[in-house]
Amino acid sequence: MRLSAVDLNCDMGEAFGRWTIADADDARIMALVSSANIAAGFHAGDPMLMNETVRLAAQHGVGVGAHPGYRDLQGFGRRKIAGSNEEILNDVIYQVGAVREFARCHGVNLQHVKPHGALYMEMAVNEDLSRGFIDFMRRTSPDAYVFCLESSLTCRIAREMGQPVVREFYADREYDRSGSIVFARRVGRLDPERTAEKVVRACHEGKVRTVDGDDIDVPFESICFHSDTPGCVEIGSAIRDALTANGIRIAPVSEIVASPAKSSRSAI
Amino acid sequence: MRLSAVDLNCDMGEAFGRWTIADADDARIMALVSSANIAAGFHAGDPMLMNETVRLAAQHGVGVGAHPGYRDLQGFGRRKIAGSNEEILNDVIYQVGAVREFARCHGVNLQHVKPHGALYMEMAVNEDLSRGFIDFMRRTSPDAYVFCLESSLTCRIAREMGQPVVREFYADREYDRSGSIVFARRVGRLDPERTAEKVVRACHEGKVRTVDGDDIDVPFESICFHSDTPGCVEIGSAIRDALTANGIRIAPVSEIVASPAKSSRSAI
Amino acid sequence: MRLSAVDLNCDMGEAFGRWTIADADDARIMALVSSANIAAGFHAGDPMLMNETVRLAAQHGVGVGAHPGYRDLQGFGRRKIAGSNEEILNDVIYQVGAVREFARCHGVNLQHVKPHGALYMEMAVNEDLSRGFIDFMRRTSPDAYVFCLESSLTCRIAREMGQPVVREFYADREYDRSGSIVFARRVGRLDPERTAEKVVRACHEGKVRTVDGDDIDVPFESICFHSDTPGCVEIGSAIRDALTANGIRIAPVSEIVASPAKSSRSAI
Amino acid sequence: MRLSAVDLNCDMGEAFGRWTIADADDARIMALVSSANIAAGFHAGDPMLMNETVRLAAQHGVGVGAHPGYRDLQGFGRRKIAGSNEEILNDVIYQVGAVREFARCHGVNLQHVKPHGALYMEMAVNEDLSRGFIDFMRRTSPDAYVFCLESSLTCRIAREMGQPVVREFYADREYDRSGSIVFARRVGRLDPERTAEKVVRACHEGKVRTVDGDDIDVPFESICFHSDTPGCVEIGSAIRDALTANGIRIAPVSEIVASPAKSSRSAI
Repeated sequence: MRLSAVDLNCDMGEAFGRWTIADADDARIMALVSSANIAAGFHAGDPMLMNETVRLAAQHGVGVGAHPGYRDLQGFGRRKIAGSNEEILNDVIYQVGAVREFARCHGVNLQHVKPHGALYMEMAVNEDLSRGFIDFMRRTSPDAYVFCLESSLTCRIAREMGQPVVREFYADREYDRSGSIVFARRVGRLDPERTAEKVVRACHEGKVRTVDGDDIDVPFESICFHSDTPGCVEIGSAIRDALTANGIRIAPVSEIVASPAKSSRSAI
Repeated sequence: MRLSAVDLNCDMGEAFGRWTIADADDARIMALVSSANIAAGFHAGDPMLMNETVRLAAQHGVGVGAHPGYRDLQGFGRRKIAGSNEEILNDVIYQVGAVREFARCHGVNLQHVKPHGALYMEMAVNEDLSRGFIDFMRRTSPDAYVFCLESSLTCRIAREMGQPVVREFYADREYDRSGSIVFARRVGRLDPERTAEKVVRACHEGKVRTVDGDDIDVPFESICFHSDTPGCVEIGSAIRDALTANGIRIAPVSEIVASPAKSSRSAI
Repeated sequence: MRLSAVDLNCDMGEAFGRWTIADADDARIMALVSSANIAAGFHAGDPMLMNETVRLAAQHGVGVGAHPGYRDLQGFGRRKIAGSNEEILNDVIYQVGAVREFARCHGVNLQHVKPHGALYMEMAVNEDLSRGFIDFMRRTSPDAYVFCLESSLTCRIAREMGQPVVREFYADREYDRSGSIVFARRVGRLDPERTAEKVVRACHEGKVRTVDGDDIDVPFESICFHSDTPGCVEIGSAIRDALTANGIRIAPVSEIVASPAKSSRSAI
Repeated sequence: MRLSAVDLNCDMGEAFGRWTIADADDARIMALVSSANIAAGFHAGDPMLMNETVRLAAQHGVGVGAHPGYRDLQGFGRRKIAGSNEEILNDVIYQVGAVREFARCHGVNLQHVKPHGALYMEMAVNEDLSRGFIDFMRRTSPDAYVFCLESSLTCRIAREMGQPVVREFYADREYDRSGSIVFARRVGRLDPERTAEKVVRACHEGKVRTVDGDDIDVPFESICFHSDTPGCVEIGSAIRDALTANGIRIAPVSEIVASPAKSSRSAI
């Protein structure tokens, strides 16, 4: 693996009402990325902000994704809620619909869905929940991409069921040996240059160093960073600059990952 | 005016989590009505319940409508929140999207949108809010009906802008001379037979007696009753029986109100 | 153990805004019990209702307890939220303060604190959380009782730290061999007479049959039933009648459990 | 009027969960003020933050006040909710109790209560609500101060009923001729020096220039600024410096306003 083009995604619209996260600056971040994961009101994001963030994405030609989370404003969706799979799945459907409606208002399609925080981690290991989620996507959004980790059940099940998948590389998180990220409710300040180097290495070699000091394989089509990581604009800029300097193009996922329809056609 | 067919609508899915409203029995009500206004999570309704209520509507062939309200679980959306028009409109868009997504899951279209409670009353007299709402409908849902009162600005603006309108007659509310309903946070127990008589008279004569004792004209295409009115199932049944006994058919709104597209076609 | 007097407690004020739980009837239940666990707004209970429920308890001479839960209206506090112990403890403090303020308004003291649902179960096995909770009680409410299971860490730690404890017997829940109750988000309809017989046996013999068919010891000073168990009024009445018929008095906890101050005095 | 000592109060703890307001810096503001109005969870403030803010106030010897608001996280309590007076009053009681509990944890008394935002404005003109609020204070907190405007009904009723009052001067808000502040959901950046001059003039002359260009009398014992006003730390520092430079001492309200108990005693 040696990537010549990659998607760059960021969680966005993660304020609420009068409040913000200190370093998050959606207007500047939107100019850096190719995919935006729009907070959908349960862990962050109110309808005013969702409208504005989708508008900004549409204006920049950035792919609009729904970013559903647990119903947990206080914990920013980084606290698991022990609901039934059916409850959690319906929470996801509700939030996806809300984001899709704002996309519709701004004349763009829903490009992808990516669960947030503790829900992303839970879905990665919860087969029934992943299956319910992918089944929902098959029925309502067969062309929309599911963003996930290669190591997740979500990824495996999406492939089995034929839903297009975009695998992520996490620029601002640590990996363990299983290829899962080490979950953290907050992440400290990172060095933008070293973060960008980690990303370039992953693009060139398909590998990342884990917290245990080993290298593991990390196949991916998209790079993720978080707007609540301190210094997020600098991190995003450093990643973008390093990719460009290394001849790796930041491109829409549709140019990188063939949709099942297209691939089946090209297979003919 | 002497109606031979009429739509019958009810606010539904108005429980939340573990709680219900005593007399509301969605399964029985769904068998009575032709349009269901699905609570969308802000004043009532959680995603589990929305999914179930939309499923029930689809199964009964009942038209699915979004029923957005103020963000007010405690007050059941019957307390006005003094937000800006832009805030409230984005709240509406968010909720409409959520209902539309569940409709999509169950393979049905969004038939209509009807604001709830204090928001319905506010929109009736707030021109900017009504205009923003209808503009949103024009862009995203040109064929979906807006449910409103003939006396409301919402109705006038929807017509001006070409959005299909369904005017309502409120079976379980009192009217004042302006043709507006007398807003109440709770309604006491009503006599089902007298309520049904009031409805039949309105269908036959197009008139209702106001709280002041006068008769006023009430043009409408749909009859509304509420699932939180005590005895709602008996009221709905009495209305249905009385309509049938008087040869007035309960029919989908699409059979009663021509959509603009259809009417322009038929005008050719 | 053969109890001649016992406290009878029930979770109360568990409606929210416009909604209720079908069989819960606080006015009738308040006439049956000696201790009321007042929902504090996070899993159930809004301020209007809290005021009314505390007023009702004060009027009936029923002991007022705070019943803090997880911030989970949708799940009725029966879904664990994976917050930090510090977060959850501060949620508890917040809710206890709210209930204590309504007690102050109605001229009564806070008699006890009993965590709700999934929080009760979590605290029973989470030593740090129990310790933080009991430490809070020591500092702010040294005379108030902590309601818990004999088998819980909460009980052990309260005793170690000198906080007065009331151990509960759950009339409408099943036990496992560890002496813990089998947690359920909802409980089906129970036979009131058989439930009452189980309670009388527990009072006479200090034993209960587990789900595995064994008998275990269940030391307790209070009997708990839930206002959301279907048929709660009948269950509470049957328990009360059976206790009375067997010469077991329902009495305030202060008559059953000596407070540390009193016991140390009597030890002199 | 020429004040030699004045209280300085600020709304504090107005973050929520993961979010902050850009310029608010409670640790620095706490070193400037003598009274802190602690957000109580409905318009801002979660239990973790309330605990920390009360701890900080206790550590600095700053008076702890409850700052109850409308149940409106999205609108920061600056949107009126049209609830009944009884509903709103119970919301106030609930929030006061929560703040008082954290004060109890940190070994300090509740010094005062000050409603927030739209609720402060509503109470100022709503006689029944003010009366209910002051009646609650009389019964539960006869020595705690009510912060309000001289021009408000809250002030008049508190005096009638014997509750100690602290009248405020708003450093970062505009006045109209009635002596009321011009309500704004957000305030732009102010010049700290000019704001401080306005404050000093008010202390020396008891007058402020209104938005209409007139001077009006503004009797007060406390100066208020807001932690969500951009540049709040600079504004607070400029006020503090200007007061000191003009020989006006910043002092606890108990040194400025005699409590009824004390004044009746000194009258003997």
